[in-house]
Amino acid sequence: MACDFVLQRELAFHETDMAGIAHFSNFFRWMEMAEHAFLSELGIAPVVQDGEMFWGWPRVRASCEYHSPIRFGDRFDCHLFVKEIKQKAVVYFFRFRKIDPDGLVTALAKGEMTSVYAGFDVPARSMRALDLQTALLEKIEEAPAELMKEARLKRP
Amino acid sequence: MACDFVLQRELAFHETDMAGIAHFSNFFRWMEMAEHAFLSELGIAPVVQDGEMFWGWPRVRASCEYHSPIRFGDRFDCHLFVKEIKQKAVVYFFRFRKIDPDGLVTALAKGEMTSVYAGFDVPARSMRALDLQTALLEKIEEAPAELMKEARLKRP
Amino acid sequence: MACDFVLQRELAFHETDMAGIAHFSNFFRWMEMAEHAFLSELGIAPVVQDGEMFWGWPRVRASCEYHSPIRFGDRFDCHLFVKEIKQKAVVYFFRFRKIDPDGLVTALAKGEMTSVYAGFDVPARSMRALDLQTALLEKIEEAPAELMKEARLKRP
Amino acid sequence: MACDFVLQRELAFHETDMAGIAHFSNFFRWMEMAEHAFLSELGIAPVVQDGEMFWGWPRVRASCEYHSPIRFGDRFDCHLFVKEIKQKAVVYFFRFRKIDPDGLVTALAKGEMTSVYAGFDVPARSMRALDLQTALLEKIEEAPAELMKEARLKRP
Repeated sequence: MACDFVLQRELAFHETDMAGIAHFSNFFRWMEMAEHAFLSELGIAPVVQDGEMFWGWPRVRASCEYHSPIRFGDRFDCHLFVKEIKQKAVVYFFRFRKIDPDGLVTALAKGEMTSVYAGFDVPARSMRALDLQTALLEKIEEAPAELMKEARLKRP
Repeated sequence: MACDFVLQRELAFHETDMAGIAHFSNFFRWMEMAEHAFLSELGIAPVVQDGEMFWGWPRVRASCEYHSPIRFGDRFDCHLFVKEIKQKAVVYFFRFRKIDPDGLVTALAKGEMTSVYAGFDVPARSMRALDLQTALLEKIEEAPAELMKEARLKRP
Repeated sequence: MACDFVLQRELAFHETDMAGIAHFSNFFRWMEMAEHAFLSELGIAPVVQDGEMFWGWPRVRASCEYHSPIRFGDRFDCHLFVKEIKQKAVVYFFRFRKIDPDGLVTALAKGEMTSVYAGFDVPARSMRALDLQTALLEKIEEAPAELMKEARLKRP
Repeated sequence: MACDFVLQRELAFHETDMAGIAHFSNFFRWMEMAEHAFLSELGIAPVVQDGEMFWGWPRVRASCEYHSPIRFGDRFDCHLFVKEIKQKAVVYFFRFRKIDPDGLVTALAKGEMTSVYAGFDVPARSMRALDLQTALLEKIEEAPAELMKEARLKRP
């Protein structure tokens, strides 16, 4: 049973903007990348396509609070925590931290994302939220209260 | 004095993902585009560069709730409202709605973004929140309570 | 019969990079946007989905030469020309020019893109190039040699 | 002296489009990522900022030929080769190949990019091509003719 996962990244040039820092929209892409890597590591395909049907995790909510900017070449962690498992959705919490070569850690941002498990009928252009699958529920669990508390409060 | 603005868009192919809908991260780019168009229309440059200094609006918070997907070619509105004017920041509220050729309106999403007015000293790699400029305060105002209430509640 | 089209754009903040100019990959997105707007204006849907099948225009070749940078807020044209109509593909030529408020025109870039008309069988994960449809061939034509010559050589 | 470099990637969800494959513009971002990783590995910073000046590698030309699509989760290589070293620029050649878990290799694309070494005077908004630095010339070399021939011709 897993409740967290760490994605490690280095800021790419195309992710910067003219202010010399990461464009704020990229944090949402990194949350998604961490979610997909977390599921994949557990043997759960984040997206399944079968004939005209398609199963995936559309978002119903996403948010991010920014503490400190990231610059080109900075290495950082995107730490995912399973905050809550609902009947048809998973709520993830994320903490972003920059790790300098000398070990200095800087809090960059924290985010949250609610992903609904849904089936898409592509020809019919319809989408429907579904109950989470047993295969998933046997592999992921909510992060314990103390871990979530630490994730939220801890400043490096 | 202005308190709202409407950006009209059509979903581009490169903004879709393999689920056949707009990738959720794009809504944050559209919020920014609406913010910049709103400021520009009022004669306020969203970004100013002068020698080694740079003034802009880094985000300290952004969130979005998704109600319904958008597909390639769909026309939609991103309606910006000035929710709150703080000493060093502006809080914007956004409502996204799809407008079909037959006039049918669909609620797509609603979002919120807090932009801090800040000066960047590029060589020093430092950033500092600043008091909002008089030029801005003379041109924008908070949306009245009734308008905000309608913006939030109204489903098309 | 149409052989060219002009897309007008203003550089968005999220399209800039830390060098303070448009990231070079965006020119390819603008070529695609111009291609889609050109087809749509002629009543040709750039993408068609029907059951498990999907028709579109995957690229087999794209190139761009960059002459001068674009900055945030700059207004520019992406001028599309139909360079060549093949049996299963269309070759487009593009010229990008910045138009200053005072009327000064600057050559930004020129590009080329070969789009193949193809059907995708989504469940089978296969893609096949198809002969161009009569509906398209009745509406587009190759740009005359003099127009192409001017498009290529003319520096503003 | 180095003349080539391999970047390994896995296609991210946000890099797909509604055709279910990687959007063609992403290949240019991967070429840049490979270029930057190549330079960094040699101890050459791809971008240097010093006061009001900024040194980097703006592109004067980029092109890509697409052979086969990539799908979400596919692992692939972006193999960079130093094709030509000019006085003020480096021409890179790239070969993209998909590596299946069972070892099957598929040619995805090949590309080329010419990066000019340039200094940007940010306040003056001017950019100037510069002679390549000795530090660079001591570390990179053109790929031998046989290697380039193989890179171009070899189909997996």
